[in-house]
Amino acid sequence: MRPAPDLIERIRGIVGSAGLIGSPEEVLPYATDWRKRYRGKPAAVVKPASTAEVAAVVRACAESRTAIVPQGGNTGLCGAATPDASGSQVVLNLSRMNRVRAIDARNNTMTVEAGCVLASLQKTAEEAGRLFPLSLAAEGSCEIGGNLSTNAGGTAVLRYGNARDLVLGLEVVLPSGEIWDGLRALRKDNTGYDLKQLFVGAEGTLGVITAAVLKLFPPPRSRATAVVALEDPEHALELLKRTLEGCGERLTGFELFSDFCLSLVLKHFKDVAPPFARRFPHYVLMELSDTRPGEAVARIAEDTLSAALEARGILDAAIAQSDAQARAFWKLREFISEAQAHEGPNIKHDVSIPISQIPEFIRATDAELARAHAGVRMVTFGHLGDGNLHYNVSAPEGVEPDVFVKQMAAINLIVHDSVARFRGSISAEHGLGQLKREEIRRYKSSLELELMRKIKAALDPHGIMNPGKVL
Amino acid sequence: MRPAPDLIERIRGIVGSAGLIGSPEEVLPYATDWRKRYRGKPAAVVKPASTAEVAAVVRACAESRTAIVPQGGNTGLCGAATPDASGSQVVLNLSRMNRVRAIDARNNTMTVEAGCVLASLQKTAEEAGRLFPLSLAAEGSCEIGGNLSTNAGGTAVLRYGNARDLVLGLEVVLPSGEIWDGLRALRKDNTGYDLKQLFVGAEGTLGVITAAVLKLFPPPRSRATAVVALEDPEHALELLKRTLEGCGERLTGFELFSDFCLSLVLKHFKDVAPPFARRFPHYVLMELSDTRPGEAVARIAEDTLSAALEARGILDAAIAQSDAQARAFWKLREFISEAQAHEGPNIKHDVSIPISQIPEFIRATDAELARAHAGVRMVTFGHLGDGNLHYNVSAPEGVEPDVFVKQMAAINLIVHDSVARFRGSISAEHGLGQLKREEIRRYKSSLELELMRKIKAALDPHGIMNPGKVL
Repeated sequence: MRPAPDLIERIRGIVGSAGLIGSPEEVLPYATDWRKRYRGKPAAVVKPASTAEVAAVVRACAESRTAIVPQGGNTGLCGAATPDASGSQVVLNLSRMNRVRAIDARNNTMTVEAGCVLASLQKTAEEAGRLFPLSLAAEGSCEIGGNLSTNAGGTAVLRYGNARDLVLGLEVVLPSGEIWDGLRALRKDNTGYDLKQLFVGAEGTLGVITAAVLKLFPPPRSRATAVVALEDPEHALELLKRTLEGCGERLTGFELFSDFCLSLVLKHFKDVAPPFARRFPHYVLMELSDTRPGEAVARIAEDTLSAALEARGILDAAIAQSDAQARAFWKLREFISEAQAHEGPNIKHDVSIPISQIPEFIRATDAELARAHAGVRMVTFGHLGDGNLHYNVSAPEGVEPDVFVKQMAAINLIVHDSVARFRGSISAEHGLGQLKREEIRRYKSSLELELMRKIKAALDPHGIMNPGKVL
Repeated sequence: MRPAPDLIERIRGIVGSAGLIGSPEEVLPYATDWRKRYRGKPAAVVKPASTAEVAAVVRACAESRTAIVPQGGNTGLCGAATPDASGSQVVLNLSRMNRVRAIDARNNTMTVEAGCVLASLQKTAEEAGRLFPLSLAAEGSCEIGGNLSTNAGGTAVLRYGNARDLVLGLEVVLPSGEIWDGLRALRKDNTGYDLKQLFVGAEGTLGVITAAVLKLFPPPRSRATAVVALEDPEHALELLKRTLEGCGERLTGFELFSDFCLSLVLKHFKDVAPPFARRFPHYVLMELSDTRPGEAVARIAEDTLSAALEARGILDAAIAQSDAQARAFWKLREFISEAQAHEGPNIKHDVSIPISQIPEFIRATDAELARAHAGVRMVTFGHLGDGNLHYNVSAPEGVEPDVFVKQMAAINLIVHDSVARFRGSISAEHGLGQLKREEIRRYKSSLELELMRKIKAALDPHGIMNPGKVL
């Protein structure tokens, strides 16, 4: 069912021609996700310039029971921001709402609109002598409204938490078109239900986040980055324990990757160098940082790694001697996803497990996959410090993409059933969107799904907010 | 309306005689809050020993539409755990559910039952070489289920967050009597709405928390505690900024108190000493801690305070030279509440304000109170690092308690209206309970209250969970 033309005209009246994407070609980028796995056909793509415009558009849609698909930088990995193919859904893109409304360095907060690009907010914070720590691969184009709607994770969660932990207040346009002003800049507020928590991570199914009060931090002024060679994930866990106990909050990053990951990066990228003269089974990229300047944090890294070497907990370690070398170390980790894509087809999993169980999870799941799908190559890496693995499965050498992709459901089943046995999560930081909406029913109790549906029905009784996503 | 006797018998069948408080005298401590401001008359006081028993009791109550008042250590300050006087409500006390179900030091988590006393959990964590950082005045008797239900704050929020930030998973008995097992021990989980957030801070109005997975941290192994003398709160704010920028996550506590607070402590307690030979208008109690042992953190404290002295940001500073002296410094802060009670009647406020606005809030509100209620004495202290003030008003000298207490509503109105003008919260860490249930309607938008009621109706359609509290 397409919305009546008068809805589109009403929307044009609200946002003007600048706020309504016209031609089918211009609509295209908004109608598909960036990995091109979902292609939708929206009734319209609307780009409001203010909260009042968002509210008016949502009200118009609500009155005609027209479905709304909120969209930010459109960098999501689960299709949550892509409309369906019915031609009846309105894409509500927040990109034009990109003002920083206020920055309060003494309160360590900034109030920003949903369409602000993450990297630009990192820069805004930096210019105010502060750190906004959320950091992830898409930061050059993802927008904070989307980051909050998916409760984004990234590389600094270990120290600063997920997106949820970085927000103090929200402004939300509700499915009725009413504006909820929850833009509080308070560290403590116990006056009833913490409603903002509902909208963070809801992937646009309960309302449209239009602005947020974000936490800022004192910026680190010294840093130590190291690559550590290890026998196996068990030793990585021991190193994590040792580092946390010895370095506490200085530990900012703790990333695990296997030698196969490294080999892919070295094979597909020219400007990277191996961290050691010889190769080892596993590596950890570790970063310490401190708000104090000077050499202390580097000495602490050295002490920690020397002690670990002595205790035979690790096989070798290299501490970056310059910023350039630190960046080079990070590339080894950051290029894995792309290297893996160059290598051929792969099936990705974004899982989390209690950290203590990760070695056993990898052992058990590797073995099961090897039995069922001989020759698959495990591309195991991730944020070990958060218990978050990107546990990806590459096709056996020489296998055609089409053939391998047919095994996706079977491989997902093995991996995610294993995750469930370890009481883990089948989506640690990417969300459900359309991608895992069906699959999650296998792993969440019917009681929990029912609770989610009750919340949804209470806040969005007509089901117009991003239907077909999450639940 | 009293519940039918057969409900009580049915409950006895579930929990046995050990789980049902019998005589009216035994019931008494469960029927009033510890400040004795609310006295209720329960139909029964039930103390189940397991989640299954809680579920069965709730189911029995749900079937007969009997109201349930969940209760932990009964140390709350807003009457949330006290039944009404109708004789129809069942108090569900969780104290017998006090097992530590699991401790996973490598995952930095422990799974505990709601009735565990906070201090005992601190000890459990310590024995496992970990820190459970939640710490507050009532820790010797409050229970973790209550801490979570009120989203307790305390003295370490600045570094470790509120109770909400310390929980990874919950087990909850829903108003239907069903058990929701959300006991996940994961740092990242983006598979739908984060339901645990609803129950944290809901003060028992949405369900009964029966168990939780709590976060653990590496324990600090060095500490520096200082009392700093300052001209005014503005300088305290400058010191906070300087300390955060220079010391980062080491800053564990930052407590402000006025000289009048100090004078009350010195007057009413014998075993305390003033921190300086002379007196100053304001003081900050500051604590740094570090997971690394040694003198480094003390040197950092010295450097920071020397620089502040040099810049004339502070008037004097004393760094504790021993653990005993550090404890003595903390007493100056911790004894304020009790000293104030000895001094006579007072009207307490637990407010939060954006940190940057605190000096102006104190100035403006002090002036307004002085105009309207000549002679009142301000007992201003609190967790400045969190923007949380215990902004208390003591009676003018010589005024009778009865006379002063009659001014409570007028004084609350001045203080809380001022809080609202600064976009603050009228309950930073104590909750609403019965105490502020009516008052909050003046300060929260009708839209927000309506959202809260929708959530309540969705989860507790018959309104049996702690009616008359929060909303």
